Amino acid sequence: MRRKKSGAGPNAVAGNGLLDRRIFLAGATLAAGGVATTTAGAQPLADAPWMKVPGAPFTPYGQPSRHESKAARIFASAPGTTGTGASRTPHHLLDGMITPNGLHFERHHSGIPDIDPDSHRLLIHGLVKRPLVFTLAALARYPMQSRIAFIECGGNSAQLYQKEPAALGVQALHGLVSCAEWTGVKLSVLLEEAGVDPKAQWILAEGADAAGMSRSVPFAKAMDDALVALYQNGEHVRPSNGYPMRLLLPGYEGNMQVKWLRRIKLTDGPTMTKDETSKYTILLRDGKSLQFCFPQECKSIITRPSPGLGLQGAGLYEISGLAWSGTGKIAKVEVSADGGASWAPAALQEPVLPKALTRFRMAWRWNGGPALLQSRASDDSGYVQPTRARLIAERGAKTIYHFNAVASWAVGESGEVKHAYA
Amino acid sequence: MRRKKSGAGPNAVAGNGLLDRRIFLAGATLAAGGVATTTAGAQPLADAPWMKVPGAPFTPYGQPSRHESKAARIFASAPGTTGTGASRTPHHLLDGMITPNGLHFERHHSGIPDIDPDSHRLLIHGLVKRPLVFTLAALARYPMQSRIAFIECGGNSAQLYQKEPAALGVQALHGLVSCAEWTGVKLSVLLEEAGVDPKAQWILAEGADAAGMSRSVPFAKAMDDALVALYQNGEHVRPSNGYPMRLLLPGYEGNMQVKWLRRIKLTDGPTMTKDETSKYTILLRDGKSLQFCFPQECKSIITRPSPGLGLQGAGLYEISGLAWSGTGKIAKVEVSADGGASWAPAALQEPVLPKALTRFRMAWRWNGGPALLQSRASDDSGYVQPTRARLIAERGAKTIYHFNAVASWAVGESGEVKHAYA
Repeated sequence: MRRKKSGAGPNAVAGNGLLDRRIFLAGATLAAGGVATTTAGAQPLADAPWMKVPGAPFTPYGQPSRHESKAARIFASAPGTTGTGASRTPHHLLDGMITPNGLHFERHHSGIPDIDPDSHRLLIHGLVKRPLVFTLAALARYPMQSRIAFIECGGNSAQLYQKEPAALGVQALHGLVSCAEWTGVKLSVLLEEAGVDPKAQWILAEGADAAGMSRSVPFAKAMDDALVALYQNGEHVRPSNGYPMRLLLPGYEGNMQVKWLRRIKLTDGPTMTKDETSKYTILLRDGKSLQFCFPQECKSIITRPSPGLGLQGAGLYEISGLAWSGTGKIAKVEVSADGGASWAPAALQEPVLPKALTRFRMAWRWNGGPALLQSRASDDSGYVQPTRARLIAERGAKTIYHFNAVASWAVGESGEVKHAYA
Repeated sequence: MRRKKSGAGPNAVAGNGLLDRRIFLAGATLAAGGVATTTAGAQPLADAPWMKVPGAPFTPYGQPSRHESKAARIFASAPGTTGTGASRTPHHLLDGMITPNGLHFERHHSGIPDIDPDSHRLLIHGLVKRPLVFTLAALARYPMQSRIAFIECGGNSAQLYQKEPAALGVQALHGLVSCAEWTGVKLSVLLEEAGVDPKAQWILAEGADAAGMSRSVPFAKAMDDALVALYQNGEHVRPSNGYPMRLLLPGYEGNMQVKWLRRIKLTDGPTMTKDETSKYTILLRDGKSLQFCFPQECKSIITRPSPGLGLQGAGLYEISGLAWSGTGKIAKVEVSADGGASWAPAALQEPVLPKALTRFRMAWRWNGGPALLQSRASDDSGYVQPTRARLIAERGAKTIYHFNAVASWAVGESGEVKHAYA
């Protein structure tokens, strides 16, 4: 049991209105605030127009409501291209931990290849006793494994390195992270079958897109929890996520989780491909670089309220967000409504899974005044999400990669929510 | 460590080829069987045509590959209607535990209403102190909760009551079950807010479709784990699953989990609606009926191999399937390849969640001879899935509801798989 802060009102757990979640069980709290409407009698509602005609027929493959067209990815491509860029998940309009397949973020280097699954091959070669070629039908014979895992682009939240807070919302700032249930064959099973030469210390993973996107991955990760993923949220991986197969490296930066996987080469060192030398390295203040920073560090974002989802008057709200860590499980998420002056632990939605998104929730009574909302996640290694000031003090702001510091939303008296630094 | 059966070969755990899963870690097992192809040298694969042109551009909302059009629901409607019937999930083409939203099964009584979310209302009335009306915006202010839950139609697997085994596959026989992550407001929070009259023992839940589909639910369930679900696998519940909100009653038969939820009435007894009197009751041999059988009993199905997914020659395969229980967690799934003469426990995919689908997997070396594949699930209450003979001995075969007995696939020497009774 947490003690109430003196003078902070009933159920207070931290400053500026953060409340114990049991407030929602007290009854009559929201209706009293005018959220629900009382009705004079107990009469049924009038029949709506859609109750007077038979509804639409069955379809082989369903789609969202036409009223939810705003729940869409936003995207931008490099000049002169239509498929070199990124699309972002609208987390402000979602809830739970699973990202539906249609809204999973994408980062493509030369668009989405139209792969014929019957012609596609996966080659395993290099430092192996016996190079092997797998068809999709061959892979389907192997034992499968499923896990729920987030994928985050190394460049997610890059705008937060900028001097001034970009006037953007959660989708544009933090939309390069998504989470799905992935099912496939453990890469270690396939490598064992090829027979690993003891000199192998790295693998090269190459995709079948026109960019031939390729990255080096430590051999230990390949043998640990890497999957050749064939299914995403139950169905075959979609073209935009690597159909017919992608590499899944739970917790590692998205770019390494090569889509349209066609080749794994075992090597004695990193291959130094374009994407691990010119890109996806962290340029420091002194001109040196941090290379091979693979796991995405522990991080959290508040998805609601957030810019574009303003508050409708003072009263009770739920603060909702997502937390994740590339090294393990989320242990704690703390929330502040006063810019970090006081914090209270949020409820974590079970199951809390390693290297997966974790939904957190916090009760809040907005008093109608200014508020600065923040979340701070810790993982089971003891790592705590840093402040922006500390991250930039340590790393500088010349890079666009691996921004994982605490982010802030400023709530104004009108209820409008804006991106802010604090 | 399990003991090998004498004479059954290395890694045997039960008769007719069931193997310890570690067989897949032994290396070279499948390639030796000709599944993967060895390649003469270590040369990269030739560039495929889709690597020579830029790929497709970004899209706001993604879709499956055009090569996966077979991963579709099949459906049938009552004569003279287009929306009164059911559509079924193609579990033979899926893996993992999540069903993608586009393939979740449906059971509609008058099609899919086209509901304007801004006009939709939820009324809570009857034995309450203060009837309340909720808009979608009002509900969105309440605390959310997520859970992964299966929904199974009470009529799933009904054909297995027939005298002869229907010549159908896993989708047509067992496709009225699906699983998703659902997020919404606990119904108990809304009922507390309305103020419950102590006389309330049941609720009536009514949908906003043209059938006005309605069912009675025990008050205790409403206060336990019932959700007014707003999100499914992250995004807003789709029209075919109750947009903008449905009742989620984890573990209960699907028909009670009223879609397009518009009204909850608290009552002192069951309302005896059409769907709980003329339908969704179990007609026994003696003409009496079992009524109000709410939880879906513990059950399992093998999804692969299954009819339409034949075996390609003797050798190693993975047997894969789904298990669930409306009363709790799956504790064990046993698999038999010899029609129940011997059994071995399958691997259960973590996380094993209560009232959710659980994927199980079993290694099997098919010797090219006849085999009879079965799975038998147990839940954490100690309940064991019955044989078909026992279920029918106890219940008769006059009903179409709540068939949960062990099902069988017969594998012929050609590798063809057929539905069978055993």
